[in-house]
Amino acid sequence: MTRRLCGLLMAIVTFTTASAQQNLWQTDAAVSPVVNSDNSVTLRLYAPQAESVVAEGDFTAEALAMTRREDGVWEVTTAPLASELYTYRFTVDGMRDVHDPANSYVMRDVGSQMNYFIIPGERGDLYAAQNVPHGSIARVWADAGDDRERRMVVYTPADYEDSRRKYPVLYLLHGMGGDEEAWIATGRVAEIMDNLIAEGLAEPMIIVMTNGCMQHVAAPGYSHEGMWRPYMSGSMDGTFESLFPGIVEWVDDHYRTIAKKHSRAIAGLSMGGFHTLHISKEYPTMFNYVGLFSAAVLRMREGVALYDNMEAKLARQFDEGVALYWIAIGKEDFLYEENVRFRAMLDEAQYPYTYRESEGGHTWRNWRIYLTEFAQQLFK
Amino acid sequence: MTRRLCGLLMAIVTFTTASAQQNLWQTDAAVSPVVNSDNSVTLRLYAPQAESVVAEGDFTAEALAMTRREDGVWEVTTAPLASELYTYRFTVDGMRDVHDPANSYVMRDVGSQMNYFIIPGERGDLYAAQNVPHGSIARVWADAGDDRERRMVVYTPADYEDSRRKYPVLYLLHGMGGDEEAWIATGRVAEIMDNLIAEGLAEPMIIVMTNGCMQHVAAPGYSHEGMWRPYMSGSMDGTFESLFPGIVEWVDDHYRTIAKKHSRAIAGLSMGGFHTLHISKEYPTMFNYVGLFSAAVLRMREGVALYDNMEAKLARQFDEGVALYWIAIGKEDFLYEENVRFRAMLDEAQYPYTYRESEGGHTWRNWRIYLTEFAQQLFK
Repeated sequence: MTRRLCGLLMAIVTFTTASAQQNLWQTDAAVSPVVNSDNSVTLRLYAPQAESVVAEGDFTAEALAMTRREDGVWEVTTAPLASELYTYRFTVDGMRDVHDPANSYVMRDVGSQMNYFIIPGERGDLYAAQNVPHGSIARVWADAGDDRERRMVVYTPADYEDSRRKYPVLYLLHGMGGDEEAWIATGRVAEIMDNLIAEGLAEPMIIVMTNGCMQHVAAPGYSHEGMWRPYMSGSMDGTFESLFPGIVEWVDDHYRTIAKKHSRAIAGLSMGGFHTLHISKEYPTMFNYVGLFSAAVLRMREGVALYDNMEAKLARQFDEGVALYWIAIGKEDFLYEENVRFRAMLDEAQYPYTYRESEGGHTWRNWRIYLTEFAQQLFK
Repeated sequence: MTRRLCGLLMAIVTFTTASAQQNLWQTDAAVSPVVNSDNSVTLRLYAPQAESVVAEGDFTAEALAMTRREDGVWEVTTAPLASELYTYRFTVDGMRDVHDPANSYVMRDVGSQMNYFIIPGERGDLYAAQNVPHGSIARVWADAGDDRERRMVVYTPADYEDSRRKYPVLYLLHGMGGDEEAWIATGRVAEIMDNLIAEGLAEPMIIVMTNGCMQHVAAPGYSHEGMWRPYMSGSMDGTFESLFPGIVEWVDDHYRTIAKKHSRAIAGLSMGGFHTLHISKEYPTMFNYVGLFSAAVLRMREGVALYDNMEAKLARQFDEGVALYWIAIGKEDFLYEENVRFRAMLDEAQYPYTYRESEGGHTWRNWRIYLTEFAQQLFK
């Protein structure tokens, strides 16, 4: 580094102590997280006067007690971890949801922010950006026909901009309290798809991530409704489902899509799985691939026409033909029993579907796995 | 809410206490932040065993001591605040950079995450999403000619997708330690431009936000270089500047631009102002509008050909003609004196430029103001 550049750096360090300057410089007493060579992870937090600090995360069933070093930094090292993306937070003297200020990697799920880290290996590598061609990610506003523009996130594969070809489309729906940012952030859609496509494991496809909570037109911070606190809002009254043909039409108008059933897929998690079930059965000539991820399959509100006559509509859908009807759920999911009942209904009618039962429950870890497996079966 | 939907909500509440379920549900003891009717703001933090909690933010020169309520929630109410976007953090018993877990609105600057809130009014309303037509925001990867794809953020105005017209382009550059996400997040580019364009105060334009730190090809989390800690890295060795014609060519190839000097602008903050100065003088037929925001104008590294002969190159640039050469800086900026010397050089040579001196220092608050004022002068 040259003397002049050093001078600029020193000037910034010096001047950011004055309140008039931006606080760009962060002096961390603790380096955290550190992935060790055995794939254990060391978490650290500077909390000089605390009496109790614990780390909580989806890598441990029990909170991990941390130990205070002499310099006021608390630390803990986990057991060696399987390759995965993990989230964590601290609790300091009963104060919950303390973030790791040394870790800039954060994801939001509904109203919660969580730090994360990735353990390399088969699964972690799939969720991390790799040195492969990258797709583009666009935030666009679409009018689905009800004269309200709503925000969507659209992934286009790496060759989209420089080719003239048309692409199949996967519509990917979030769960209750989620929004159009959920799948791209916590769901790691861009990383998973870039990596699968680069390895030849998935077809290049467009992925459209809608906002299916009708209370708001966009994720927090992006709508004109101010700075509300994200909450577990749901939209299960038929409105979102009935708007879906307008969304598909908008996408077909604005992207180089193959605008045919054989090149359209739809999948969703939890409430988004419920939406997927009803959208796909309501418009049986629209989607050839259907994915129900930990879906709230049997939550129909009474008195909503769109949810009536489910068995007749399913009959019509399977009569029209579905290349893949894929149902995935974790053994510990609170919606497990309801999925058992739904599958019994399908079995009774002898409809063909594929069932994937995983470990675990109603978690993003499972939804990333389901997306990875589902995407590889599409458009082939 | 119907009974079935309630049932689903209750099931989620119940089951998210089990570790196998996603922790979607957050029970906040504290509601924070709350903008009161007099534009004071109440900040709260649940810290039941803490002995000292203070709030720090860019709305106060001194940290604000908070008071403990009986229920373990600490709170403080600020004085009435001017309309603005403000950032804040807490310090709890000497533990710094404590986030507000009740506030989902977070922005990252280099390696620091900060909560924020917006006070409505003239300026705050400009920085918040409004019920106006929204532009799109795309994250794309561009090869500038050195065979390494780098990530860029591109704002296209609201009518871009549905029109066939061509648009002028503003290239907007970040400062040291920043990346392609800096302007769109902390700089509020989309909100500012949507609002200015909707009011007829700025021309519809494309805005290209590059990554000008050559050490990495993308913001943290989006490059294949793993999960590094963002730091105050700079790129002031001429590399970025020399790649810029390739970036402009890529943009002209991939967007409906008016690919002429009269419809191109470039501006940057701090190191990005330095880049702007050198790119615009190096390629004098490329940009008609130049904005130096708190620019590190005189930090040329010796022995770099691109930085040599500055006076002769400036002469050529002003000889070719510049519609607007706009220099803005705060009175308390640590680069103030250096800008005085640079302006003396311009004055000596009798080059036309516009000077805007503001209050404050080297802050995002100023950079948002500068963008707002600069954008209104472009392409008219």
